[in-house]
Amino acid sequence: MKHKERIERALLALQERTYYAAYPENPRAYAEDADARGKEAFQKQLSNSFSGISDDGNLGYIGEEVSPYMMVGLGVQYPKFSASILVERAESAHKEWKRIDVERRADILIDMLDAVSERFFELGYATMHTTGQSFMMSFQASGPHANDRAMESIALGYNELTRYASQVDWVKNMGKFDLTIKKNFKPVSKGVGLVIGCSTFPTWNTVPGVFANLIAGNTTIVKPHPKSVLPIAIVVAEMQKVLVNNGISPYTIQLAVDLTSAPITKELAEHKRVKLIDYTGGSTFGEYIESLPGKTVFTEKAGVNSVIMESMQDPKAVFGNLAFSFSLYSGQMCTAPQNIFVPAEGIKTAEGHLSYDEVVSGLSNAVKGLAENPKMGAFVLGAIQNDTTRNRVVETLGAQGNAPLTAEVSHPEFPDARLQTPTVIGIDASESTWKHECFGPLVFVVKTESKDHSLELAAEMSTEKGAITCLCYSTDEQYMNAVEETMNATFTPVSFNFTGAAFVNQHAAFSDFHVSGGNPSGNATFTDSLYINRRFVWVGNRFA
Amino acid sequence: MKHKERIERALLALQERTYYAAYPENPRAYAEDADARGKEAFQKQLSNSFSGISDDGNLGYIGEEVSPYMMVGLGVQYPKFSASILVERAESAHKEWKRIDVERRADILIDMLDAVSERFFELGYATMHTTGQSFMMSFQASGPHANDRAMESIALGYNELTRYASQVDWVKNMGKFDLTIKKNFKPVSKGVGLVIGCSTFPTWNTVPGVFANLIAGNTTIVKPHPKSVLPIAIVVAEMQKVLVNNGISPYTIQLAVDLTSAPITKELAEHKRVKLIDYTGGSTFGEYIESLPGKTVFTEKAGVNSVIMESMQDPKAVFGNLAFSFSLYSGQMCTAPQNIFVPAEGIKTAEGHLSYDEVVSGLSNAVKGLAENPKMGAFVLGAIQNDTTRNRVVETLGAQGNAPLTAEVSHPEFPDARLQTPTVIGIDASESTWKHECFGPLVFVVKTESKDHSLELAAEMSTEKGAITCLCYSTDEQYMNAVEETMNATFTPVSFNFTGAAFVNQHAAFSDFHVSGGNPSGNATFTDSLYINRRFVWVGNRFA
Repeated sequence: MKHKERIERALLALQERTYYAAYPENPRAYAEDADARGKEAFQKQLSNSFSGISDDGNLGYIGEEVSPYMMVGLGVQYPKFSASILVERAESAHKEWKRIDVERRADILIDMLDAVSERFFELGYATMHTTGQSFMMSFQASGPHANDRAMESIALGYNELTRYASQVDWVKNMGKFDLTIKKNFKPVSKGVGLVIGCSTFPTWNTVPGVFANLIAGNTTIVKPHPKSVLPIAIVVAEMQKVLVNNGISPYTIQLAVDLTSAPITKELAEHKRVKLIDYTGGSTFGEYIESLPGKTVFTEKAGVNSVIMESMQDPKAVFGNLAFSFSLYSGQMCTAPQNIFVPAEGIKTAEGHLSYDEVVSGLSNAVKGLAENPKMGAFVLGAIQNDTTRNRVVETLGAQGNAPLTAEVSHPEFPDARLQTPTVIGIDASESTWKHECFGPLVFVVKTESKDHSLELAAEMSTEKGAITCLCYSTDEQYMNAVEETMNATFTPVSFNFTGAAFVNQHAAFSDFHVSGGNPSGNATFTDSLYINRRFVWVGNRFA
Repeated sequence: MKHKERIERALLALQERTYYAAYPENPRAYAEDADARGKEAFQKQLSNSFSGISDDGNLGYIGEEVSPYMMVGLGVQYPKFSASILVERAESAHKEWKRIDVERRADILIDMLDAVSERFFELGYATMHTTGQSFMMSFQASGPHANDRAMESIALGYNELTRYASQVDWVKNMGKFDLTIKKNFKPVSKGVGLVIGCSTFPTWNTVPGVFANLIAGNTTIVKPHPKSVLPIAIVVAEMQKVLVNNGISPYTIQLAVDLTSAPITKELAEHKRVKLIDYTGGSTFGEYIESLPGKTVFTEKAGVNSVIMESMQDPKAVFGNLAFSFSLYSGQMCTAPQNIFVPAEGIKTAEGHLSYDEVVSGLSNAVKGLAENPKMGAFVLGAIQNDTTRNRVVETLGAQGNAPLTAEVSHPEFPDARLQTPTVIGIDASESTWKHECFGPLVFVVKTESKDHSLELAAEMSTEKGAITCLCYSTDEQYMNAVEETMNATFTPVSFNFTGAAFVNQHAAFSDFHVSGGNPSGNATFTDSLYINRRFVWVGNRFA
């Protein structure tokens, strides 16, 4: 087995949960001309049919992506297929793929990741101009970070699929003789998987499920968000290339592109031969997916993340850290905080007491300062992926009697970019606007009755609406313990007193579990053993 | 940790799937007077209130068990509790139990099994006179085999709950400095579990879920079948005793006894604080349990198990083996075969060709011979647990124009015992009676068009009705491979060419997965890692 050692290294990191990166996240670790070549490849692709994925039997070419930076259509066209042909091919490819042993599957899948890594810069530009992420974030999220999450699936999958003896002579002494039964134990794959992507993280949220399906012997259809296809199309193209080079059907992984005006997601999801569904996106559709009978379902849905402020050392460091977390990709990360709970009496800091109003203005000023810093600003904020997000924020603010913060920020390279600085607004706990997800650049500083009330509200939100992260600022050990225990009981992880370069939004592969799977924000985790084991079934045969 | 070594031994067996028994299954391995003492303890219990479980706040005493051997009520009365008080106490005990670390939990749980092992003989008599199993089967199934299955849950649970580092310093080089984040990783329990037992295997099918819940930090309410309470009551009594001796709330494990005329299962199952449900029993109620929103559910429902006969060496050995599998506990095992698929053209054997009719009569005669053998007969058959099972068999046969086989068999000790020899009847594949579960002593020899038709029908039954086992007799390697692959794809294990002391009904702890979880016979397995990991959630906290 070619890549055994790489798998073992990844597994060790995963078990010890130490820092580990299978693919370097620093662009400078790659070839000097890689950036230029990536940009050129991306530009060549614009207004062209996407090449590199199998297009046999297509029903024409479609595409509707728009760059949130250039505010023009990318013009990339992808082959369109019927749901029935996609499923039929996936089923047929499954007959072959399931027979390949897990060692060879792992080698092939790691070769795919290596092939993808050759296109990290192109992926960066493709992600930037579909999601609106800054280039640096696009590069990291769709490139090395996505590959690392995929590597997690492969490594843990390899571990789980080989954890039992594959053959054994079972010998039982029966008094006068030994009864010997030969047994084999097989992880039997479930069949065809469907992975439904989202518009903001088209590869990072998609590849863990894709590679978990594949290592377990299931073939997979990827249904990207129609506004965010190009990044995952590049990944699928590289995967199909590796399959073909190994003499394996390219239909082991397929791309199912549709249009917002003519979606095929439901037809695919409800198809009786589709056995596994991975989904990232809004909660309403997520609940529909979870309700489908006879499917094994993995979801990441919406959550409402809390910050609990009780006391702190250095308010300036805290406001700076939070401003970055609010601003990073303009609050369009599923891990971004939305509600900051602050007691009406204000908070103690090492630099004296801060009133509730001072916290609101402190946070707002920090966000404004970051936005107006020409070296940060647009490079942290990125662009807003779609009009719906921006309009929802503007409407929510309007209903509250507030206007969006329009910090003096524009993108030096893309004057038409759809930018939106986060707005920080104070709100009383008794109001209701903050009690549901307001996806995008909007932050509520919720005035609570007390620190206990803050915790109670944060826990209630996790239980009822779901939460992926929680951040707590406190210098009181007893309070910290209460927050940890109470929030953990709602299956929400807590980060404490983050300042400097530690940001609550960031979930590192091999160490941080992404989404706990225990509250309404989703039913699965990147990557625990359930994420693998639910994709296949152990079957043992016996031979007299 | 007191019992670390025992856990490691169990885990090794589980991983290598070799023969292993944590508790000896031979009654002679126990104290010489253990049988007499067990019988006496059982007899003392008759017509008395059950002592040994906490009865604070009971709403009176109830009980309706009837011995299938004596055909009289046992008269054992158990404290009755409201669903709300049971759940309230379980939730309150959870606050304490979840805080106990997994090492101590494992030690306490193994101490419980050791305490239960002191009452194996009493458990044997209690099981015999509630389920109708023979004494030997009762002893083994409710005693050592059940304890072994519980030990599997404890050992695998210990493994899964400790598989990741509990604390780590995560250090990432950021160029000019190292970013260090302290992290902890916690398996967070889900809360209150409910385990719903069945009438035929009141401990064997119940304790795996109970101990899996407990090792993962969940407290548990056991709701036994009202006709089969005493065995699990003895187990719960020993468990509560160990808890109290450790200064822990006895309500960590509770017994919820009800009456068939006033069931509380649905009230418990639907209670919003009940987070986990384990269920063994009929498919209709099982599907209702699976449909409850917001619950983590583990089911073992009905299945229809097949035997595929294509060719064989020694028909006499095969018929003898099958007769035993049909007769063992009169077909009331979930692993017992129901349908024997035989091609109309008959089968090849080393002793010449056998016609379809010869197979039917050969099997029928073998069953009759076993029943009439005074050293086997009643001791293999046991008694029929309830009238419903017997009546259903008689009615099914009547509708087919057949009468039940009444071999000359009576129980030497219990003249009133509800005995029923299995009836073997030939039926054409085109008929429909064999196409659903006929629980109890009834076997159909289904006449098929060909060996391929046999396999097709067996696979169809697994997919549509579910199957826990499949047995195949064939000397043709190519056909064996086809059967293995086709049946495994329906998530059904296959046993090949069992004769002698290897029986398809028997699933050994630490080696055989019981129920695959992949077809309608159930959604869970004794015991794979899903059986543990679905009972808790990994949560990681981070400290700057």
